[in-house]
Amino acid sequence: MPQGDIRTNNLKKPVDVSEYLFTRLHQIGVRSVHGLPGDYNLVALDYLPKAGLTWVGSCNELNAAYAADGYARVKGISALITTFGVGELSAINGIAGAYSEMVPVVHIVGCPSTVSQRNGMLLHHTLGNGDFNVFANMSALVSCVLAKLNDPAEIAAQIDHALRECYVRSRPVYLMLPTDMAIAKVEGERLESPIDLHSPENDADKEDYVVDVVLKYLHAAKKPVVLVDACAVRHRVLDEVHAFITKTKLPVFVTPMGKSAVDETQPNYGGVYVGDASHPDVKEMVEGSDLVLSIGSLKSDFNTAGFSYRLSQLNSIDLHSTHCVVRYSEYSGVHMRGVLRKVTERVDLSQLKVNPVPATVLKPIDTSTIPADSAILQSWFWRAIGDGPFLRENDIIITETGTANFGIWDTRFPAGVTALNQVLWGSIGWALGACQGAALGAKDAGTDRRTILFEGDGSLQLTVQEISTMIRHHLNIILFTICNDGYTIERFIHGMDAEYNDIVEWKYKDLPTVFGGTDETVKKYVVKTKAELEALLADADFNNRKGLRFVELYMPREDAPTSLQLTAQASARNNAKLE
Amino acid sequence: MPQGDIRTNNLKKPVDVSEYLFTRLHQIGVRSVHGLPGDYNLVALDYLPKAGLTWVGSCNELNAAYAADGYARVKGISALITTFGVGELSAINGIAGAYSEMVPVVHIVGCPSTVSQRNGMLLHHTLGNGDFNVFANMSALVSCVLAKLNDPAEIAAQIDHALRECYVRSRPVYLMLPTDMAIAKVEGERLESPIDLHSPENDADKEDYVVDVVLKYLHAAKKPVVLVDACAVRHRVLDEVHAFITKTKLPVFVTPMGKSAVDETQPNYGGVYVGDASHPDVKEMVEGSDLVLSIGSLKSDFNTAGFSYRLSQLNSIDLHSTHCVVRYSEYSGVHMRGVLRKVTERVDLSQLKVNPVPATVLKPIDTSTIPADSAILQSWFWRAIGDGPFLRENDIIITETGTANFGIWDTRFPAGVTALNQVLWGSIGWALGACQGAALGAKDAGTDRRTILFEGDGSLQLTVQEISTMIRHHLNIILFTICNDGYTIERFIHGMDAEYNDIVEWKYKDLPTVFGGTDETVKKYVVKTKAELEALLADADFNNRKGLRFVELYMPREDAPTSLQLTAQASARNNAKLE
Ligand SMILES: Cc1ncc(C[n+]2csc(CCOP(=O)(O)OP(=O)(O)O)c2C)c(N)n1
Ligand SMILES: Cc1ncc(C[n+]2csc(CCOP(=O)(O)OP(=O)(O)O)c2C)c(N)n1
Ligand SMILES: [Mg+2]
Ligand SMILES: [Mg+2]
Repeated sequence: MPQGDIRTNNLKKPVDVSEYLFTRLHQIGVRSVHGLPGDYNLVALDYLPKAGLTWVGSCNELNAAYAADGYARVKGISALITTFGVGELSAINGIAGAYSEMVPVVHIVGCPSTVSQRNGMLLHHTLGNGDFNVFANMSALVSCVLAKLNDPAEIAAQIDHALRECYVRSRPVYLMLPTDMAIAKVEGERLESPIDLHSPENDADKEDYVVDVVLKYLHAAKKPVVLVDACAVRHRVLDEVHAFITKTKLPVFVTPMGKSAVDETQPNYGGVYVGDASHPDVKEMVEGSDLVLSIGSLKSDFNTAGFSYRLSQLNSIDLHSTHCVVRYSEYSGVHMRGVLRKVTERVDLSQLKVNPVPATVLKPIDTSTIPADSAILQSWFWRAIGDGPFLRENDIIITETGTANFGIWDTRFPAGVTALNQVLWGSIGWALGACQGAALGAKDAGTDRRTILFEGDGSLQLTVQEISTMIRHHLNIILFTICNDGYTIERFIHGMDAEYNDIVEWKYKDLPTVFGGTDETVKKYVVKTKAELEALLADADFNNRKGLRFVELYMPREDAPTSLQLTAQASARNNAKLE
Repeated sequence: MPQGDIRTNNLKKPVDVSEYLFTRLHQIGVRSVHGLPGDYNLVALDYLPKAGLTWVGSCNELNAAYAADGYARVKGISALITTFGVGELSAINGIAGAYSEMVPVVHIVGCPSTVSQRNGMLLHHTLGNGDFNVFANMSALVSCVLAKLNDPAEIAAQIDHALRECYVRSRPVYLMLPTDMAIAKVEGERLESPIDLHSPENDADKEDYVVDVVLKYLHAAKKPVVLVDACAVRHRVLDEVHAFITKTKLPVFVTPMGKSAVDETQPNYGGVYVGDASHPDVKEMVEGSDLVLSIGSLKSDFNTAGFSYRLSQLNSIDLHSTHCVVRYSEYSGVHMRGVLRKVTERVDLSQLKVNPVPATVLKPIDTSTIPADSAILQSWFWRAIGDGPFLRENDIIITETGTANFGIWDTRFPAGVTALNQVLWGSIGWALGACQGAALGAKDAGTDRRTILFEGDGSLQLTVQEISTMIRHHLNIILFTICNDGYTIERFIHGMDAEYNDIVEWKYKDLPTVFGGTDETVKKYVVKTKAELEALLADADFNNRKGLRFVELYMPREDAPTSLQLTAQASARNNAKLE
C-alpha cells in the first residue's frame, strides 16, 4: 500500500488484513490454526504469532480439515488455512463433512493477487484457463458464506459477517484471501467491539405461543419421553437440555449422533434409541410413548438404523434451530433455545407423568464367565470399556465410521464426556484427524481432558500420517486401532470375502516411532485377549501418563456389533431397491 | 431388473452396465483400476475380474487419483472408482490436477440408487439436504464430460461418448453410477465395435493452407529452432515430432513440461529452454532465432521461469491441438498432428538452414574435483545422475514439485525416457501417488521399465502411505526421498527460517517396513556424501534388483537449484505486486 494512500490515511487505526482476521479469530476462541503453507498464503502466515495463534503444521490438507472439524467440536470454532487450488481442493471433503455435520470451520484460502487475477495470468495451481473462481464455486456449495476479500473498503465487514455466520449457523465459511490483500490496510478500530455471536432472539409472542402448545401436550401426556439428537449438540442447547431434564426428571434417550449430549449417570437416562437397532426395552418405551419431545433431531439412515423409527408425528414435538413442529403444526423461525428455556421455567411438575427408564438396559455387563484367553469380541467390548473404571469424567471419545461407530452405542459414559462421530457424513480417516484437532482443542482450552480414539485398521490407512502431528504437539491421546483385517463394516454390507475389502497389514505399533515418536512421547501396547484388555484398562500408568498411548487391539475379522449388522442389511437393501 | 422387462427383452445381447463399462475400459487399454470401496460401489466392484481388470486397493482416494493420473500418463488412459461424496471429494484435487495437466482419467462414482435420489432420502455421505447433484456439480468444473447414468436406454451411448472424449480431449470425465443402474441391462452387442479414439481429421484444404504457410517461413528462416512443450506430450504427437526433427535435424529444445518429449541423445537436442532460467547459450540460441517452431506450448509461470520468455510473436509458429498460429495469423480447428505430418513430408531440406546446438550445455559435468565426503549439492546432483551410468533407456522418471522439479532440468536423459511432473498444477504428494500408478502402468503394459521417483521430504508427508500400495503390487520403483529438513522451495519463496516451513523429522527408511515391506520386497539405502551417492548409483544390485528401493538422500536445507531460485524470486515478486 503506497504511503500516501488516501483511503489508508482515512483509517483511524490502520491494521493489515491478516492481522485483522487473525485477531478476530483469537477473539472468538481460536488458538491454533491447522493447514499447510503454500506460496499464496506464506505472507499471511507471518501474522499468526502476533495475534496469539499457533500454527499446527498438518501433514496434508484433508487431514488438516478433519482436525479443524475436531477442534471446532471441542473448542467451539476453528480455522484452516490452505493454498489456492491444490490445497483447498485437497481439503474440500473435510469441509463438506463439516457442512453436512454442522461444524463451524473458517476456511481461509491464500490465492493469487487481485492483479494476477485481473490479468488472467497462467499461474501454477490453476486449471490453465485463467479462471480464478472455479475453486470458490465448488466451495460455495459447502459453505454458508463465501467471501472474496478483494476490496480493502469491504474486507473488515466481510470478515466480521463471515465469522458470525460461521458460528451462529454452525457451518463452514470460505474466505478467499489474495496475496496483495493479505497486507492491505483496514480499520483496526473495529476490533475494539467484539463480533456478536448470539443467535437472534425469537419473536416473543410466537415463542410464548409455541411454549404454551408444548406445555399443553406435555402436561397431558401419559408416557412422555425426551429424545436428544445431533442438532441439540451442534446448535449448542445442551445447557438448556440439561436444565430441562434435571428439573422434569423425564426419561431421556439419545440417538447415535446425540450420544454424550446428556449426562448418562443421571437416573432418568435411558440409553440410545435408534429404531429397530435399539435395545428392546428402549424401543418399547420410546415407541410406546404418547409424546416424544425430540430435540434437534436428524433422521439420517445410519442415525435411525435404516429409517426404522416407529414413531407417529401425532405423538411428536420436534424442536429445531430454525423451526419447531408440534404434531402437525409448524412454527417457522422459532429457535429451540428460547422455547426450551421457557418450557423449563413454566413446566408444572405436578401435572407431569414421569415414568422410570428401563432398568435392564444400562445394567453393567458381567464378563466373568468369558474365559480370560477369549478373543476380544464386539458383543462385549463396548460395554466393558464403559462399565469398568477405564473411562473418566470429561474424556473426549471419538469413534471412526466402521464397527466402532456402532459399538459405541453400547458404552455408558461418565459425566462430562464429549463423544464425536461422523454418522451422517461418514468419511473414513476423519476420526484420526479429528482426534488430533479435538485433543489440541482441549489443550488450548486449558484442560487436561484425555482424548480417546477408536479407529479402524482400514480407516487408519487414509490419514495415518497425522499421528505425527499428535506427537509434534504432545497431545494426550489414547489411540485404539481395531485390527480386524480390513473393512469389516463393508464386509457386512456386501462382499464378506471380497478382495476389495482387504487391506495390507501394516506393522501398526511401529507407526508412532516412524512418525517421530520416542520412548518419552509415545507408549505402545498390543491386546488380543480379554485378560490383556482388562489388564490394560486397569493399568494406572496407561491411564494417567501424558502423550500418545497407541494400542493395537485385535478383534475377529467377521465380528461386528449387532446394531451394525442390522443397519448394514438395511443399507444393502436400500442400495438394491429397484422401484 | 424384473425378468419380463420389455426393454431388456428387446436387447440382443443383454449385459449388465458394470460389465459393459469395465469391458469398454479394458478395450481402451485399462488393466488396473485405482480407488477405494464404499457401499455405493461395492456391487459394481464385483464385475472387475470378469472384465479382466485388477483392483488396486489404494490407501485413500486422493492418492488413488494421483495414481490414476500417473497410470494414464504411462499407459494412455486410466480409471478411478470412488464412492459418493466422501470418496469422490477426497479425490477431486487429483482430478483437478489431471484436468489442468490434461491427463485422461475416467472417474466412476458409485452413488445412491435412482430410487433413493428421487425420494430425496437422508442418506449417509450426503449434505443432509436431499441434493444428490452437488458433488457432480463440483466435478463438472474439472471434467470434460459429466454423465449421470440414470436411464438404461442411454447408458451405453453415454459411456462410449465419455470414454472417447476422455481420450481424445485428454481430460478427466466423470461417470455417476447409481447402485441400481450398476446392475441394469444394456445392449452388449455394441461391445463388438470398439470405440473410435482417433482425433477428427483436419479439413484438408485448411490443413494444406497452414502447411504452406509454415513451410514458407521455415524455408526462409536463417536460424530456425524447434521448441517442444507439454501439449505435444498430452496430445500424443511425439511420433510426429520425432519424425520431423529426425528428418530435418533442426535444433530442438524442450520446456520443463516438455522434458523427455524428444530423444536427448540426438545430436540436434539442445537442452531446456525456460526463459531467464535457461543456460545462457540456450537462451541466446532460442531468443536469437528468427523462427521458433513451437509445438504444444503451455506458457505457465513455472514453465517459463516466471514469464521470462523473450520471444517475438513475429518470429513464432505455434502448433496446438485445437488451432495453429503463424506469426499473427490464427487457424482455428487445425490440429497440429496433420500439420506436422505434412510439414515433415513436404519440407525441402535443401532450403533449410540447420545450425548446430550449443555444445557447452550438455557436456558431461566433471565432479572429480568435488571431495568424496562433500555433501550432496543441488548444483551437481542432477547432472551427476544423468551423466553417469545410472539412468537407463526407457526409465520412467518422476519429479515432485519442489527442488526436484527444477533440478531435473539439468539431467540429460537416455533415449526412451518418460519424465512425469506437475509443473502447472503443482500439488505436492502427487508424485508419490503418480509413481505408484506409473509403475503399475508400465507393468500392465508388459514392460519391465524402472520407475524412478525424486520426492521431497515435505511432499512425502502428504501421501506417504501409498508406499504400501507399491509394495502390495511388487512394483519396480527406485524412490529417492530428498531429506533437506522441510519445504526448501517455500523457503526460497518466503520465510527462509519460518517455522511453517519446518516438518517433523520421520524415520524415513523405516517407512517401507511399517507399510508391509520385507527384506525380500524392499531394500533401503542412506546416502549423505558424494562418495556414497556414486557408490550407490554404480551398485549393480541396486540398479538391477526388482521391487522397491528406498533411498534416503540428504541434501542441505538451504540449497536449491539456481533455476528454482530465479523462479521463486519471480513468484514472490508477482505475489507482492500491487498494481
Ligand atoms: C473417504 C471414504 N472412503 C470410503 C468409504 C467407504 N467405507 C466406509 S466404512 C469403510 C471401511 C472401514 O474399515 P475399518 O476402518 O477397518 O472399520 P471396521 O473394520 O472396524 O468396520 C469404508 C471403506 C468412506 N466411508 N469414506
Ligand atoms: C497440496 C499442496 N499443498 C501445499 C503446497 C505448497 N507447496 C509447494 S512446494 C511445498 C514444499 C515442498 O517441500 P519438499 O517436498 O520438501 O521439497 P523441497 O524441500 O525439495 O523443495 C509446498 C508446501 C502445494 N504445492 N500442494
Ligand atoms: Mg477394520
Ligand atoms: Mg524438502
